[in-house]
Amino acid sequence: MSENLRVNEARFWSTLEVSNGIGANRGTGVKRLAFTPEDKAMRDVFVQWCREAGCEITIDRVGNIFARRAGTHPDLNPVAMGSHLDTQVNGGRYDGILGVLGGLEVIRTLNDNGMTTLRPVEVIVWSNEEGARFVPTMGGSAAFCGNWDLDFILQARDDEGTSFEQALQSVGYNGDAPLPSRELDTYLELHIEQGPVLDAEKKQVGVVTGGYAVRSLVLEIVGETAHVGPTPMDKRHNAIVGAAYVITALNEIGWKYHDDDAKTTTSRIVASPNKQGIISEHAELMVDLRHPSTEGAEQMLAELMQAIRHAEQRAQVCIRVVKQLQYGLDSFDPDVIEVVRRNTEQLGYSAMEIKSQAGHDAYQVALVAPTAMIFTPCDLGYSHNEKEDATAEQLRPGLNVLLHSVLERACRPQ
Amino acid sequence: MSENLRVNEARFWSTLEVSNGIGANRGTGVKRLAFTPEDKAMRDVFVQWCREAGCEITIDRVGNIFARRAGTHPDLNPVAMGSHLDTQVNGGRYDGILGVLGGLEVIRTLNDNGMTTLRPVEVIVWSNEEGARFVPTMGGSAAFCGNWDLDFILQARDDEGTSFEQALQSVGYNGDAPLPSRELDTYLELHIEQGPVLDAEKKQVGVVTGGYAVRSLVLEIVGETAHVGPTPMDKRHNAIVGAAYVITALNEIGWKYHDDDAKTTTSRIVASPNKQGIISEHAELMVDLRHPSTEGAEQMLAELMQAIRHAEQRAQVCIRVVKQLQYGLDSFDPDVIEVVRRNTEQLGYSAMEIKSQAGHDAYQVALVAPTAMIFTPCDLGYSHNEKEDATAEQLRPGLNVLLHSVLERACRPQ
Repeated sequence: MSENLRVNEARFWSTLEVSNGIGANRGTGVKRLAFTPEDKAMRDVFVQWCREAGCEITIDRVGNIFARRAGTHPDLNPVAMGSHLDTQVNGGRYDGILGVLGGLEVIRTLNDNGMTTLRPVEVIVWSNEEGARFVPTMGGSAAFCGNWDLDFILQARDDEGTSFEQALQSVGYNGDAPLPSRELDTYLELHIEQGPVLDAEKKQVGVVTGGYAVRSLVLEIVGETAHVGPTPMDKRHNAIVGAAYVITALNEIGWKYHDDDAKTTTSRIVASPNKQGIISEHAELMVDLRHPSTEGAEQMLAELMQAIRHAEQRAQVCIRVVKQLQYGLDSFDPDVIEVVRRNTEQLGYSAMEIKSQAGHDAYQVALVAPTAMIFTPCDLGYSHNEKEDATAEQLRPGLNVLLHSVLERACRPQ
Repeated sequence: MSENLRVNEARFWSTLEVSNGIGANRGTGVKRLAFTPEDKAMRDVFVQWCREAGCEITIDRVGNIFARRAGTHPDLNPVAMGSHLDTQVNGGRYDGILGVLGGLEVIRTLNDNGMTTLRPVEVIVWSNEEGARFVPTMGGSAAFCGNWDLDFILQARDDEGTSFEQALQSVGYNGDAPLPSRELDTYLELHIEQGPVLDAEKKQVGVVTGGYAVRSLVLEIVGETAHVGPTPMDKRHNAIVGAAYVITALNEIGWKYHDDDAKTTTSRIVASPNKQGIISEHAELMVDLRHPSTEGAEQMLAELMQAIRHAEQRAQVCIRVVKQLQYGLDSFDPDVIEVVRRNTEQLGYSAMEIKSQAGHDAYQVALVAPTAMIFTPCDLGYSHNEKEDATAEQLRPGLNVLLHSVLERACRPQ
């Protein structure tokens, strides 16, 4: 009876247009960092839309928003969709936003058609997924799932010294739902691929089977201040130089495993005093590496650790791993993957299996609930850039696969 | 009649103690950046002391302070001493300060002994020598001498966006003496060596014959933002990675010429957006290289430019030289050097010829007036560090050589 059910695309795009205008940046981009006035404005609009759609709103201690459409059996665990509304500093219009507004559109479509489900259906907004304001990324979902220490999330500070907790309170999204939280029956995250594969292969849907193994490190480099002039090379302990040896070596490791489709990145460097005329005594680096396999990632990590030892010697500094996070899975839940695959096929869309290379809230949720992701193509894979783009044709299949997959799971009695 | 003349050391050290307390930092260090409340407090005390010593005060448009003790022939050009009262972020107690307070002590000693000079004798405080707040270094002396563009100095901004000119006005040291300025008969700068040579060689005075050739560059690296995950290595344009290849290559160039006593430094790196999860599109580097000879410095610079081209290729970024400054001289004025050498010998101090490796205001003044420098030893060569230290024994010879050299030059009719 529901095979002809489709989302209301015009309505979906109208919500996206509202989002595009909140934190509009560099023409076609969006800058909406966690718990800023822009993030609050977008959250406010989203909550209003969800209330108008009959949803009950819950907010937890890290600001995650849960909009629940009741099922006929309230004692059954919910089927949840979700992603994030915050963006990178130089973000696009789709990253994260698609999964939230797509989820809202699924609920509205169910409402339009007077459809009931056994299980409640939820749309979740995870806080600060990007990590653009507060490190780490995926803080909201990690706290919900109890994967990372709550204090580590709440006490993270932005570049101005404001904590996650303070910023959250300032926008009034500090709820009282407890953490770590309750069980989810299913979690489905719709997202643009953020890579070039689906676009190049002309596939309409990416059935995401898992994630690349990611190792993410914060490094502290300790040297000593001295004059840049008379201090002989062999008496220097320049933290910036130590950092640079790590950065170049890590980049070479990325190239070494390029054929495996591995990647390495230094995303952040901060040095101190970082002034003309004086050698810096301190530097902090954020680096990460990604490989399709856990073994590959571990091998790359071992090579990075070796490069760190070499950098210590060459620059005469001390380098310490301050924080090491790992995420990415060998695979998402086979049953949920199968639901996505089957619904894609039944809807007649072309599909391919794909692994996610970006981090997503789904990685966190997958550790506590049956999870899968649905990728849509995006233009040339641009992301974290205002050039990020996707057409109605590119998003339509993913939206409808989300609708049908959620419906199938939400009508499942056990 | 004056051969037994000596400075009043107790009085000199009492002025240094006052200085130590203004911006005291990290125990034995001083943090007194240009045109901060600390810098203003130190200037105020200095000006008061000079007025009490009978000096006339003049201040020019970049905040340089000139304290003049009249000579019997006011039409003759003055003999000037000087250095700076600002420090690095992590500065010591002697760097710059010695040359100013030593100059004041020379004037007070002349007063004590009722000595007159044909020429006026001046003590000069040069603004923002360190460049720790406003880039470039030596901005005050360069403006006085007309060597660097006045607007480049006045419009330089600190990390908070405040301009040199605004900060100068805020402390009320924006004088009206015109720039570039008048002739000096002689300029003598007393300074701690900031290197380990005199201390190691057990020499009491360094007769500074000139400076190392310095090439100082500001580089801009331009890449493109992208996602740190799915973006393949060959599609990345990470400005931080481009910067790192320059930094490591420059460090290797420093080691290559280590036996020549050359040095290379990256003192500053600032990247943007510089956030977790996103590739940086922009970075700025401050680098410099120093070599005892101009030819050596030019050769090193050529190798750096080659390394920059390599970094562009390896990191797939564009690198631009935004600003290039050069300073350092083959030699100071032979006559003034000879005065320093002779007075050191007559006073019975051990001495050696030495070249300055740090930049000094004397480099700027030397381009418009007969100039030399006098170095004192300092403990193990520590500088730009709170460990910077010098004993009364280490400073006594330099102070008295300054006194006698100034006296000789100031009594010279033509």
